[in-house]
Amino acid sequence: MTLAVPADVISRLKAVLGEGGWSQDPDRLAPKLVEWRDRWSGTTPLLVLPRTTEEVAAVVALCAESATAITPQGGNTGLVGGQIPDGEILLSLERMRRVREVSVEDDVLVAEAGVTLAEAHEAAAAVGRRFPLSLASEGSATIGGLVSTNAGGVAVLRYGTMRQLVLGLEAVLPNGEIWNGLKHLRKDNTGYDLKQLLIGGEGTLGVVTAAALKLFPMLAGRAVAFAGLAGPADAVTLLARAKEATGGSVESFELIGRLGVELALRHIPGSREPLESRPPWYVLIEVASGEPGAAEAGLERLLEAGFEAGLVLDAAVAQTEAQAKAFWALRENQSAAQKSEGAAWKHDIAVPVSRIPQFLETAGAALTARWPGVRIDAFGHVGDGNIHYDILSPPGGDPAVHNGLRDQAAHVVHDIVASLGGSISAEHGLGTMKTAEAAAYKSPVELAALRAIRSALDPQRIMNPRVLF
Amino acid sequence: MTLAVPADVISRLKAVLGEGGWSQDPDRLAPKLVEWRDRWSGTTPLLVLPRTTEEVAAVVALCAESATAITPQGGNTGLVGGQIPDGEILLSLERMRRVREVSVEDDVLVAEAGVTLAEAHEAAAAVGRRFPLSLASEGSATIGGLVSTNAGGVAVLRYGTMRQLVLGLEAVLPNGEIWNGLKHLRKDNTGYDLKQLLIGGEGTLGVVTAAALKLFPMLAGRAVAFAGLAGPADAVTLLARAKEATGGSVESFELIGRLGVELALRHIPGSREPLESRPPWYVLIEVASGEPGAAEAGLERLLEAGFEAGLVLDAAVAQTEAQAKAFWALRENQSAAQKSEGAAWKHDIAVPVSRIPQFLETAGAALTARWPGVRIDAFGHVGDGNIHYDILSPPGGDPAVHNGLRDQAAHVVHDIVASLGGSISAEHGLGTMKTAEAAAYKSPVELAALRAIRSALDPQRIMNPRVLF
Repeated sequence: MTLAVPADVISRLKAVLGEGGWSQDPDRLAPKLVEWRDRWSGTTPLLVLPRTTEEVAAVVALCAESATAITPQGGNTGLVGGQIPDGEILLSLERMRRVREVSVEDDVLVAEAGVTLAEAHEAAAAVGRRFPLSLASEGSATIGGLVSTNAGGVAVLRYGTMRQLVLGLEAVLPNGEIWNGLKHLRKDNTGYDLKQLLIGGEGTLGVVTAAALKLFPMLAGRAVAFAGLAGPADAVTLLARAKEATGGSVESFELIGRLGVELALRHIPGSREPLESRPPWYVLIEVASGEPGAAEAGLERLLEAGFEAGLVLDAAVAQTEAQAKAFWALRENQSAAQKSEGAAWKHDIAVPVSRIPQFLETAGAALTARWPGVRIDAFGHVGDGNIHYDILSPPGGDPAVHNGLRDQAAHVVHDIVASLGGSISAEHGLGTMKTAEAAAYKSPVELAALRAIRSALDPQRIMNPRVLF
Repeated sequence: MTLAVPADVISRLKAVLGEGGWSQDPDRLAPKLVEWRDRWSGTTPLLVLPRTTEEVAAVVALCAESATAITPQGGNTGLVGGQIPDGEILLSLERMRRVREVSVEDDVLVAEAGVTLAEAHEAAAAVGRRFPLSLASEGSATIGGLVSTNAGGVAVLRYGTMRQLVLGLEAVLPNGEIWNGLKHLRKDNTGYDLKQLLIGGEGTLGVVTAAALKLFPMLAGRAVAFAGLAGPADAVTLLARAKEATGGSVESFELIGRLGVELALRHIPGSREPLESRPPWYVLIEVASGEPGAAEAGLERLLEAGFEAGLVLDAAVAQTEAQAKAFWALRENQSAAQKSEGAAWKHDIAVPVSRIPQFLETAGAALTARWPGVRIDAFGHVGDGNIHYDILSPPGGDPAVHNGLRDQAAHVVHDIVASLGGSISAEHGLGTMKTAEAAAYKSPVELAALRAIRSALDPQRIMNPRVLF
């Protein structure tokens, strides 16, 4: 579907935004029209670059008046195509990049949509606080996009996804009106929580222009270990013990298979074997505490108990910051390491934590039976039940052939996920990639409710029309 | 507004539910038609008592078909009148009281709507886990009501309100269809998060029939202290230090004024002075940790630093469980202690944490200037910015006179709250009591959006029609 935008709408949008507020320059547009892995590319008649919330409102109001569709875009780091226009007006928030406020007493940071996650981290650190959302693309991903996609990452186990980290929002609704919900409140029971619809709404219910984010104290004590395990079931058991032993101080508990470590060793310069014993599975554990020494003590106690119980085969605790970073690099570089191996079928799934072992076993058997030789790089967040389940072609396989099977493979994997009460998109959202598939797994009752809500707020369906239901 | 329900609807409802599934017996109905403090009473043509989700669905479908209004009711502990019918069908969930599932590996408990909070606590404890939501009425308050009102309580600082504690919901939507959203997932980014609308929806968007709730590890170490402070500003500063010093292990941080302690001493048998020095303000601090000794050490360190900084005037750490309970009783019995003093104007407000001192000063000055001699019992959750701001009549004042001024006083208090960016209902919800007032403080943009959502899901407005916008 490519939409024709009337010329007078284009010229009125230009007039509203003025010089520097829009572009039709192909070079300026190019990086915003291609998804970074090159899986989706698109077109737009006009890139609009509002600098203020009022300008966003003016753009949306004009589009609402003329039933013109809009695709909002943040840092263009999305993995499901939701930010790539196909003839819609492309609304970039890149010029809205002010940190409006940081308050230590309220533990809150108010950032505009175009502020990157890394910049938000810095602004919090400057006042001795921490914004805990953390993910690989944090140098480019922006607050508006992270809110709109309910981003997750590596600290969800302790701090939750974006949904738990937003205290208030400012947004332009599909009718072009500004909703100022930028409260600093920890509690507010005065009707439906409108911000919860915009969080994870993927830009279909409005444009997030600013967010009030929860800050947390810096934690003095931090300890990181790499542990070798016989299998994922032991990871699930060890995590339950870790939560008990540390009283909720586990920040991350990341699963990596032996293949994942091998890929990093092969393709990422500077990578080293984390453990001499080369076990079939690993977990990266990070514990943090405000009590001096507690993180280290808790992690030691956990690993000892794990050895005794036969859950932990081998383990190394990082002795220096550099070693901790090296451990983390093995995990963070999984996507980068895969790139050099050719094509991959990628899945971002969640199942109940207890069902991770069953998922890995069932999906692995189904895929290797149907496509012998495929290599499974499964890694992810045990505590969230969230596995990044990536399937590489057989060694030396033809990338084009592998890519051609992607949808079939996704169907196999997602059917298994659904049978285990899981989700086919744990943290990446649906975008244009998974919308149709997700609709097939949802109940008609839920779909009807979600569609009714959307129609109520955007009766003309101008906001990101190809995304969600 | 009293609604006449046609006789044939009544008889069809009776037929659907069968013997024991409904009542019109005045004695059976009486306790459900009066709010426990006697502030609201109502009427109903029929009490329906479904035992299963399917029966709830049949009731709602019949009501939808005939545009018959319904008021859902949980444990009837609400403080804003939202559970009291005024001619609507009264739908009680009291027979849906099964704990359907408890899973240690998934850290989840699935409870039906009629399960009390105390029963949920017990079911979690039976498997060595904890459900942390905690409030004074937990023996009567039920999961369905707690979800529908987004309940808070004394552990929100660390664990959040109900909104953060629900993994999934099962509900009957206003069209009578069952939505099965009882997932056990920690992450699921596949469209709008429908459960977030039902949480805090006060029964206006459907009837919650069951919830999947997050469990947490039991924490071995727990330490409780009562500290004396010069004023609320010092409480705010001390809390910020407490969060840093304990790395997020503060479970509760409750403010109480001297008047509150005096009321407890006067009216609650067994109460004792917590501190000999009788300071003007107190905080009750509870710290919990999985690391043995860490809670005690963290609390000691905090109090020492607080003394040195001049923030803490005096303090006592509970040496026994009985002493900890005695400290908590002073806080938990505030409402009970007030009862013996006659009428009270009660407010459940929230402001940004940093503005608590300003709120207390401004509101106190405004009220005592206008109504000399009124006594202010302010207590609540510092970390949530949530103050229960209760105003007693002057000593010996006429309760009827004091009650007659309630709305005027609320207006004074709530205007100040609004000017500070606060909420006129932090945790109790709006019910019939505060709906009109809240509408006056909300922006037209937000009200229009909330109303559009409600109309989309309940076009006939049959669900709790007098509550919310």
